[in-house]
Amino acid sequence: MSSFHAIIPAGGAGKRLWPLSRAARPKFLLDLTGSGRTLIQQTWDRLSQFTEPDHIHVVAGPEHTEEIRRQLPELENLIIEPQAHDSMPAIGLATLAIQRADPGAIIGTFAADHVIDNTAGFTATIRQCIAVAESGTLCTIGIAPHDASTAYGYIQSGGPLALERAPDARHVANFAEKPDAATATAYLAAGTWAWNAGMFIGPATIILQHLDDYHPELHDGLKAYANGSGLWGDLPSIPIDRAIAEPAAHDGKLATVPASFGWDDLGDFAALAEYGAATQNDVLWLDAYGTVFATDDGAAGATDAARAVSVLGIADAVIVDTGDNLLITTRAYAQRVKELPGLWRDRDRPDLT
Amino acid sequence: MSSFHAIIPAGGAGKRLWPLSRAARPKFLLDLTGSGRTLIQQTWDRLSQFTEPDHIHVVAGPEHTEEIRRQLPELENLIIEPQAHDSMPAIGLATLAIQRADPGAIIGTFAADHVIDNTAGFTATIRQCIAVAESGTLCTIGIAPHDASTAYGYIQSGGPLALERAPDARHVANFAEKPDAATATAYLAAGTWAWNAGMFIGPATIILQHLDDYHPELHDGLKAYANGSGLWGDLPSIPIDRAIAEPAAHDGKLATVPASFGWDDLGDFAALAEYGAATQNDVLWLDAYGTVFATDDGAAGATDAARAVSVLGIADAVIVDTGDNLLITTRAYAQRVKELPGLWRDRDRPDLT
Repeated sequence: MSSFHAIIPAGGAGKRLWPLSRAARPKFLLDLTGSGRTLIQQTWDRLSQFTEPDHIHVVAGPEHTEEIRRQLPELENLIIEPQAHDSMPAIGLATLAIQRADPGAIIGTFAADHVIDNTAGFTATIRQCIAVAESGTLCTIGIAPHDASTAYGYIQSGGPLALERAPDARHVANFAEKPDAATATAYLAAGTWAWNAGMFIGPATIILQHLDDYHPELHDGLKAYANGSGLWGDLPSIPIDRAIAEPAAHDGKLATVPASFGWDDLGDFAALAEYGAATQNDVLWLDAYGTVFATDDGAAGATDAARAVSVLGIADAVIVDTGDNLLITTRAYAQRVKELPGLWRDRDRPDLT
Repeated sequence: MSSFHAIIPAGGAGKRLWPLSRAARPKFLLDLTGSGRTLIQQTWDRLSQFTEPDHIHVVAGPEHTEEIRRQLPELENLIIEPQAHDSMPAIGLATLAIQRADPGAIIGTFAADHVIDNTAGFTATIRQCIAVAESGTLCTIGIAPHDASTAYGYIQSGGPLALERAPDARHVANFAEKPDAATATAYLAAGTWAWNAGMFIGPATIILQHLDDYHPELHDGLKAYANGSGLWGDLPSIPIDRAIAEPAAHDGKLATVPASFGWDDLGDFAALAEYGAATQNDVLWLDAYGTVFATDDGAAGATDAARAVSVLGIADAVIVDTGDNLLITTRAYAQRVKELPGLWRDRDRPDLT
């Protein structure tokens, strides 16, 4: 286990959780589950179960480094990405740095803003993935789908890898981007498809080799940037799923282990309903079954006093009350919340985004 | 005109406009139309067009007298009702006082919290009603119905009175309480029914005579109370419509003049939508046609800063944002808002009611 390194690309605006999640305080910096720990702190806690602090690497934008250092005082490896360019450049840059210091490193990448409900199960799954990686194959984790969601990519598992220390590992037969509803329903019925949660485990050398094979311009651009002879802004924006996982799957070079833990990406306010976010407000509802109410009590501008909220006759209402910013919608519109920050920017209110 | 006196019973909690309208700041004390004048100030302004200040009488509860005096500095006649007992006791008490000082007085009663959009038309209608009253008959004003509302009582007009100074006055053939929807639709189709807006004009002697005829116990109780020998709390609670207008109509002793003005009782937030209440807040809506947004900017506890509000995917949303109290509903539920103050009281939050 000594050569395992975790990368946490701490990006993503979480626009679907606006205005709780704002450009200056994105989702991963918030305690959205009422646990007392923010999402990036929970990610850190989970990885610390089997990884030394000096083997955990966070990649983040310059506007968030101060708050990340405050939230993660044990963090040693904080890599700055000058601008957000999706996950592959961030993960690639960290992988290059890790591989230079530790050429035999096994890398795992984990989003900073997901919720996992069983740390022991998570550790057991990661151990199987590390065994797959040690056999020289990139591995991803498959989440048993709860429903025919169109919000995630899907992974179809094929035949078993038959590895002693990874008994549940299988080849990936197909790797599909977010499907339409009919396709998602067919995937669910087939029983062989899992959600792609964006977690990848593999040897640093294999990750960089895939990157060189499938996106040589990005591979070389990253090396140039790491050597001080290239511009970050010249690199393409692309997620790791599309950059290497999808083509590797196509070439029979991707494996998968089913998750033995509960997973939630807290993708929108409908998802947040599961967690009954802590609030000091007093909420009354009448003919409004399923109301979700969330506040940002710690944020600047949050209301001081207990505010009373009455909801009458709106089923599945979603109400988000931060000090300067009030959002009212329904769970059915939860995915469209991401349109709002841009509309406010168009109204010359960038302070709200 | 010298013997005309106006009574403004300033009661009614306006619970359908909660939390803008609260027990301590009822509807009539609020500027709900963004005109710069509260509803009782608008009522005063309208009556002052043809009535001297010392002929205008306000009846109100002790908890509102200070604010009424502040809003109406010219007011001379403020009569306190110890507790709210609906409109007949309040109007009867004021009528007794007026009649003692001015036995030939003609009385008009006008709610403190209605909106009238054409003061010249209002004055012309009242002049016809005064002419009817001078002929010895109680007169009410009929509002041409906008729709088959079930929120108002209805008046059916009969044959003309044929008075020279009240050419539009007619006998009242029927006086109906709030009908069900089918009945209201039939009234609207018949074309002879108008809404009862609760405005009555008649000689003080006739009003007191009707009260003695139809509710002698209330008549005598009021006289006793005025003489210091009875308790206000012993008087029944009853509106003037039911106490004298309905039985007088039944006995062929009620006349009506159609309103030559626009009228709105601002009965709920759906009605308030017409007025686009002034707000310092910045409101954005998307897939939320018909949203009503109201704030209570001047109230204690109101938010200081411009608060941004986003409404997504709720048609006809009603959002009322006072500092300590946030209400979210839809126009379809506007009439049920009145249930909320009681529910908060049940939750040991009388401060919110």
